[in-house]
Order: sequence, then C-alpha cells, then structure tokens
Amino acid sequence: MDKLHALTQLKYAPTLQLYGESFNSRFLIGSALYPSPAIMKDAVTASGASLVTLSLRRQDPANRQGEAFWQEIQSLGCQLLPNTAGCKTAEEAINLAEMCREIFDTDWIKLEVIGDDYNLQPDPFELVKAAAELIKRGFKVLPYSTDDLILCLRLRDAGCEAVMPWGSPIGTGLGLMNNYALRTLRERLPDTPLIIDAGLGAPSDATQAMELGFDGVLLNTAVAKALNPVAMASAFKLAIESGRLAYQAGLMLPRQNASPSTSPIGQPFWHHK
Amino acid sequence: MDKLHALTQLKYAPTLQLYGESFNSRFLIGSALYPSPAIMKDAVTASGASLVTLSLRRQDPANRQGEAFWQEIQSLGCQLLPNTAGCKTAEEAINLAEMCREIFDTDWIKLEVIGDDYNLQPDPFELVKAAAELIKRGFKVLPYSTDDLILCLRLRDAGCEAVMPWGSPIGTGLGLMNNYALRTLRERLPDTPLIIDAGLGAPSDATQAMELGFDGVLLNTAVAKALNPVAMASAFKLAIESGRLAYQAGLMLPRQNASPSTSPIGQPFWHHK
Amino acid sequence: MDKLHALTQLKYAPTLQLYGESFNSRFLIGSALYPSPAIMKDAVTASGASLVTLSLRRQDPANRQGEAFWQEIQSLGCQLLPNTAGCKTAEEAINLAEMCREIFDTDWIKLEVIGDDYNLQPDPFELVKAAAELIKRGFKVLPYSTDDLILCLRLRDAGCEAVMPWGSPIGTGLGLMNNYALRTLRERLPDTPLIIDAGLGAPSDATQAMELGFDGVLLNTAVAKALNPVAMASAFKLAIESGRLAYQAGLMLPRQNASPSTSPIGQPFWHHK
Amino acid sequence: MDKLHALTQLKYAPTLQLYGESFNSRFLIGSALYPSPAIMKDAVTASGASLVTLSLRRQDPANRQGEAFWQEIQSLGCQLLPNTAGCKTAEEAINLAEMCREIFDTDWIKLEVIGDDYNLQPDPFELVKAAAELIKRGFKVLPYSTDDLILCLRLRDAGCEAVMPWGSPIGTGLGLMNNYALRTLRERLPDTPLIIDAGLGAPSDATQAMELGFDGVLLNTAVAKALNPVAMASAFKLAIESGRLAYQAGLMLPRQNASPSTSPIGQPFWHHK
Repeated sequence: MDKLHALTQLKYAPTLQLYGESFNSRFLIGSALYPSPAIMKDAVTASGASLVTLSLRRQDPANRQGEAFWQEIQSLGCQLLPNTAGCKTAEEAINLAEMCREIFDTDWIKLEVIGDDYNLQPDPFELVKAAAELIKRGFKVLPYSTDDLILCLRLRDAGCEAVMPWGSPIGTGLGLMNNYALRTLRERLPDTPLIIDAGLGAPSDATQAMELGFDGVLLNTAVAKALNPVAMASAFKLAIESGRLAYQAGLMLPRQNASPSTSPIGQPFWHHK
Repeated sequence: MDKLHALTQLKYAPTLQLYGESFNSRFLIGSALYPSPAIMKDAVTASGASLVTLSLRRQDPANRQGEAFWQEIQSLGCQLLPNTAGCKTAEEAINLAEMCREIFDTDWIKLEVIGDDYNLQPDPFELVKAAAELIKRGFKVLPYSTDDLILCLRLRDAGCEAVMPWGSPIGTGLGLMNNYALRTLRERLPDTPLIIDAGLGAPSDATQAMELGFDGVLLNTAVAKALNPVAMASAFKLAIESGRLAYQAGLMLPRQNASPSTSPIGQPFWHHK
Repeated sequence: MDKLHALTQLKYAPTLQLYGESFNSRFLIGSALYPSPAIMKDAVTASGASLVTLSLRRQDPANRQGEAFWQEIQSLGCQLLPNTAGCKTAEEAINLAEMCREIFDTDWIKLEVIGDDYNLQPDPFELVKAAAELIKRGFKVLPYSTDDLILCLRLRDAGCEAVMPWGSPIGTGLGLMNNYALRTLRERLPDTPLIIDAGLGAPSDATQAMELGFDGVLLNTAVAKALNPVAMASAFKLAIESGRLAYQAGLMLPRQNASPSTSPIGQPFWHHK
Repeated sequence: MDKLHALTQLKYAPTLQLYGESFNSRFLIGSALYPSPAIMKDAVTASGASLVTLSLRRQDPANRQGEAFWQEIQSLGCQLLPNTAGCKTAEEAINLAEMCREIFDTDWIKLEVIGDDYNLQPDPFELVKAAAELIKRGFKVLPYSTDDLILCLRLRDAGCEAVMPWGSPIGTGLGLMNNYALRTLRERLPDTPLIIDAGLGAPSDATQAMELGFDGVLLNTAVAKALNPVAMASAFKLAIESGRLAYQAGLMLPRQNASPSTSPIGQPFWHHK
C-alpha cells in the first residue's frame, strides 16, 4: 500500500505554477453571488482553492467598507486575485488594476476587458493592449480570454505567463462549448499554464477540462448558484483532482468497436493481450 | 468547520443499497485486462470498490486454478460479483450462474447475455428470460442491459432490484452515447438502483453519469487499459464521488445568456440578486 | 453538360425498393396534425412522397366517414400506408392491421406497438411477436422499431423486408439521438432497407440520416407543425435528395488538421496533390 | 397547385444581397483541389454557384498563364471572387488585393489573413487592419473570419457589408464546431449578410448553417475531395436550398417529451389541437 500511496500522492501533486509561485490547488474560485458571506466562506474552504477572485467596488475605495470582507478571505489562507470585471477598455482596466494593486497590496490581477454586454466575452483587441501595458508595469496578469489561438499566442507574447480561455460565456453553465479550439490551445501552448475560466456548469465539465490537460479551472456561478454551494464546492474540488489525475494516468483511447473485458475461456486473465 | 464537515460527510454518504445490502462505494470494478495481478490488486484497492466482477473460467472449475485469484480479491475486503460473460442464451447464462453460485458461494450474479459478437450488446429477449428464471431461483441478479426503457421495466418487473444499462458498447470508451435514453430511464425508474455498466472511457463520463442521478458505475477497461491503472482507479473514485455529491448539491441550470458573476458597483456583493 | 446531366440523374435515381416494389421517392410522410386538410394535401404534394401513412379511426369503420379523406390521398397518386398507432399489444396490432387491410384494400402496414405512454417507444417484445404473425398472414410489414441491433435483426429474421428504426421519440424533433447505434445498424444490415422513422425535427436531420446510408425517412410532425408546412415539405424533399446524393457521391473524411484549399504559388492548380 | 408553386417559388428566392448586388445562389464555391479542370467546371456548374473563389498565382501575373482558367470560370456565368489566400499580414493582403483588382478587373475580394500555419485561422488583428484599409480603397471585402462576435462587429464597423465566419478550420470537414457562437453572431448581426466559410464536410452541415439563418455557404474541399465532385456539388446545392427554405418555413421547436403524430380515435384528424 505504501507504493500505491506514494504513487497517488505524486500524481495528486497539485502544485500549479504561476509566475514562479506554487499553489496547492488547481481550483480558482470566485467570491460573488453566494447567498451569504458565511456560505461564501464555507464554500471557499470546501473548494480548497488557494486563489480567490474578487471585484473591487469602485465607488468607495476610500470608504474601505469592503475591507472586512477581503480580510476574511485572506484569513482563510487564500491569496486574493482582484479582477477588473466590468471594464470595457484597456484604459479602464489598467486604471482599475492600479487601484487594486494599491488597495489589496498585490501585483496579481485577473484581467477582464469585456467587449459585449450580452455574451460578456473578452474584447481581443483591448485585452491584448491592456495585458501588454500591465505586464510592463510589473503586474502578474491572468487574462480572461476567448479560446482563439491567435489571441492566446499574443497574450503569451505580451508577457502573460498564464492564459485563461473561456469554456463558454460567463454564468451560462454550458461547459466546454468548443472542444476543438481548446485542444488546439493545449497543443500549441504546451508550456504556458492554461486555466479554463467561465462557463462551467457541472463538475463533469471541470473533469473534462482537466483531462484535456488544462492546468486549472476558475469558476464562480456553478458553485454559488448551486442549491448547496458548500457541497458543490467539494464536488468541484474532487472533479478537478480527478481530471488532473486522469490526465497524468493516461486515458484509454476511445474506439469504435466493442471489445470484451472478460477473459476468453481457460486462460489466466493476465496472459491475454 | 464542523458544520461544513458534517454536511459534506452526509452528502458523501456512499451507501449504495442493492438487494437490501449496503455498500460503501458506488464504484463497481472489473478484474480483467490488467497488466498483472499485482496491478489489478492495487487498482482495486485504489478504486475503493466494494464489488468486484470476475468471470468464471469455465473449462476448469474442478481444477480450481483460479481459486487463489478470487481469494485475493476477497482478501481486499471486496465482495465478489461473478458474471456470465460470453453467454449467448438464457440457458447458458442460467447454467453458468448456477456454477458461479456453487464455486464462489454467492447468490450475486452480474447477468450478461450477449446478443451480438460485434457490439457485444445484451440480447433483450434472452436477458429477460434469464433474469426471470434466476430471480426465481433466488439469485441477486444485476443485469447488464441496454438503455431501452421497456427492457429495463421488464427486468424490474421480473424482480431485478437493480438494473445496469450500458453507457456505450463494452470496451469502447465512448462514454454516454445516448443521454436522452439515460435521462428517461432515471425519470421513469426513480426507485430502482441504476448503475451505468460499460462504455465509460474517462472519469468525466462517470461524473456525468452520477450527475444525472445514477446510483453507481461499473467499469473495467478504462482503468485496466490506462497507462497507470492504479492512478486511474483513484481518478474514477474521485469522479464518482464528485458526481454523486453534485447531484445531491443541486446543479445550476444551464442558460443561453451570459450573466455576470461580479457585483455591480457600490453594493455589498450579498445584496444583489 | 449531357454527361453531367446523365450522371446526376443516375445519382438521384430515387427508386426505393420495398417488398419488390419500387417507389419514386425516399420520403414517407404522415397525414396527421396539419392545420387543415387542404394544407395536408399541398404538403403531401410538395413532399413528393409516394407513401403516405394514416391511422384508421377505429370506432367508425362501418360509418366510413374517413373514406373521402383517404381517397383524396390516393388521388394525389400516393400509396396509402395504414399504421397501427395506439396499439400496445401484438394482439391489438394484429387485429387493427387486419381491419386496415380490409378497409384500405392493401397488404401494406406500418406496424406500431407502443410500449410506453410517455416516450411512445416500440415495445421490442410485442413488436417482434406482431411482426412475425403479420408476415405469416401475408402482410408487407414496415415495423417502427428502436435502434436496437438485436431487435432489428429479429425483425428481419421474422421476414420483415425493411425496418424503420427511430431517430428519437415521436414528435420530439430531437433528430438522430444515437448516431453510434444507427451506424451500427447500417453496417450490420447492409441489405435490408432501413428507414428512419420518428424524431426528426429539421431537414438537416434528414440529410444526415441519408448521408449515413439510410434508405429513406418517414416523418410527420416536423412538417405538419412547421409555420409553413407546405414549404417545409419541400425543404425535407430537397434534404433527403441531397443526403442520398451525398451518400452516393462519397463524402470526404473529416480530419483533425486544417489543410489549405488554395494552391501553392506558381503552379497550375490541378498539378497539386 | 399554382398557389403552392407560387409559395415555394417565393421561398426559394435565392437572391443573396451583397454590396447592393443580387446573386441567384447562396452557394459560393472554391475552384481549387479538383481532380481536373474539366471536373472543376462541371462541379461549378452543378453547384449553381454565382460566385467562384480563386487564388491569384502570384509569381506570374505578367505571364498570364492562368488567364485561360479564369476566363473559363467566367464563361460559366460566374463572377470571380479572388482571394488573398496565403497572406499573413495586412500589408501582404492589401498588396495582393490590389494585384487581384488589376488582373481580374474586379473590386470584389475574399480577404484572408492567416494567423497560424496549423489551423489556418484568420488573424483577428491583421484582418481588421486589412479590411479597414481595403474598404477605404473601394474594395468590396468579404472577410474570412472566426466566429468571434467582437471581431465580426469590428469588421462590420470597418465597412464590411458581409462577414464570413468559419464553421471549423479549412479543409477539416468538421462542420459547425461552435453552434453557440454562430447563433450569437446571427442574433447580434441581424442585418449583415453572414456566410459560413470553411470547415463544412457534408451537405447536412450546410443545411444546418442555413437553418440557423445564415445567408450563404462558401466551401471547396468537401466538393473537390468527394469521390464524385460533380454529384457532391449538386448535393450541396440542394442542401443549401433546403436549409434556406426550412429557415423561412419556420422549424418546429424540439421538445423533450414524445407526442403522438396520430389522431386519437373517433375524431377527424384536423379537429385535434
């Protein structure tokens, strides 16, 4: 059993590497939309996430009324990952990122530059502009991106050490809407951490993303809007670990023809090919 | 944290009920196709399965050369679930079931009556016949079935206290090939334990099956033919737990339109709808 | 252009062969659910179908109030294909088939034996029983079946010279819900005419069925419930012809990698591989 | 029958409007990859396409060795649509477009600016740049685009009076790989002609695109690489007409529950709801 234990421990090793830092979990979770702050805290705890995104309430940074909130998140041992949600231009996003850096005292930023009010997708043009500038200013940028290969390559070339393509539009729960594009990204950016951000609805979506070789998953709605967000956070935690482990364990290849799993007669089962 | 712990413990509660017996895992695993007996044992252990299927090698029951093998499985604390793999008629299956009962000293039988050499699917006609007879003879029958509603209803009406519809043909790894049929089964047999048997290729397939409300998963090839079967067994264990937990936690409903997970400006995040 | 014309004429050749008879169209259409009898007639005409299913109104066969209706269908040059819709046992279906034979003066019968009130699927057990008996009695049986290979083989072995597997449940418009099963049927019954019956919602579903090599398509709801049933009948007619032609023309194989359709520089385009 | 005829004639009306011109077909076809020039001509004829794309062989514009070729295309009554295949920057594409304008004596250009040698996808950044400049210079630009909403909006805002999103990468035959994105495009650009360009493999893919409300289809490989390109061109022609007609005829909505298409007993069929 020790051998087994060592093996599976090794495989579990969840050290997600981002900008030279190690994280003990491949799950990044959002802090919005929960029924209450208490449930949010329990869900974050159950998720095992080490990075928690949150949105700066822009009107009252001076007022600091949110301070208690983010200190609570930090008290859970999680690192804050402020985001630029709601920004529509590079300029807005850069300004908000600077405010976040000051208030939260962190270089990390989840960069969102929304191009459309309906599908809330990233604007490829403004996103690259903002990412390049923020990298220059010393930020550790995690850009929320589409699954467009050229866009992701440009973000990487602008200095982003990780890219976060969407699975599907924010809050839809539609899962991975374009497997082909995601597989292409994984193949063509083998050395860049890629985190699926947005659109996942069920743990099986997260498992699938991890089986494809993605390095992590960021989500919010699917946990916060579950009937039981705390249990759902646990479910996603297991799902992500499962998918990572499966990726490393080497999945069987699907085949078109059935093949018996039972031994032909009269031979010890381990002598069959 | 105690409240959280209690909650998630409750939710995990993996007691699969079959024929009045409780099982500590919703994972049923096969014992064939592994690279070696040692790896098989480690994989079974890693899977946490409490039911392990195996095929009686029919030529040599007297000879008992397999005895060591199944005693080893039992030594892992698992219950044996002999199957009737390879049988093509009700008569053959009934005879083999009787032999299994004698040799393995168990009433449990995984009933397989194959109707086709290529897709290895169950023969609906022979399957119902065999199931009815075996139930009369006091067996605890777990029939390997298609996803045909009428067939599953007939099996239930014949006295089967659980039914095992396929996900897709044995050994293909194609996953759940007919979601519509599986959803229908779950809706129409709400009180019968339903276990997906055959065709799963990746842990995400298992998670998906459990999210749909199935009671368990039986598989073999996807673990045995993984590059690392032991790690893959762990991955499936987590996947099944994740899917069950998600089912109980209440999945969000997918929606066609994007919806921001971040708070509008200037309000505490928990006051938004 | 004559060569081209000859070629495409040949390819279009729509002679569907059933029980030794030739039909000029691969489209079989239902006569129920239309907004009015006039629209039904126009839609049947636009469909080009040569077989039109209809249901005997059982209460009043003596009364003959439906006679005008079916004479109208026949006046369109279509052959009547009475069905046993609503029957739940072999016995009921056999009795109704006999009544249909007498009243409509035809040996042709679309055999439906419904096993479930909710998904309206065929009962495999009663269906085989009814088909075998009706074949013995000299009927030309077109059985409405599931996509279960064993069931379809049994129907063929009972003497059915064509089988009509469902695409998905009647009236759902879900299209082809189990491509794997349908491909298997086509491969394993290469010499039996196979007609997709039920569940198609859009012309693209019909095209897809024909591309898979099916011999025809039977549908009703998708035409009758369209906003404009007459135009939709035309659309399905084209779709079925398109899919048949494509099947015969030999579809390209999908590939995972992009491949330019434009010529490299400096060479006549027809010298490139 | 006249009424019917008028109705379906109306519905077929294939006048695709692009830059104020009307085209009698919604099928745009490529001229590359055919087994021979003769087969290419026959296939173009069978397709009924009124726009035919072709690639300028850049090395020898002076030499004019291709002249016979494109004059042949024009002799078929088709309008030439030169493309900028192979260009990787806006500058290259603009230069090539100018050469095309001079040589082919046409303002029309299919604008391709490839961003990646493997998936041959458009480069969103260079594409917008090239489109804006070519529009300024008086070209009628049909840009080959991804299915990214923001990119398509930018192309429209740059003056493109039609946009051509991909179905999937060129030459793959994978069909419509992201239905969600395509539906979004159609909803959000209701007044811009949208033509699916690239990736279609089977006529059913084309039918599906048209059913979604797209205005046309451009393809090459699926016809040129069919076993019988001429028959396949006819199949696509029918498929596109079918899908357009279905879109206009109003498709039924898919539903989860079965619904009988046959009349309850004892009532004239047209009195049922």
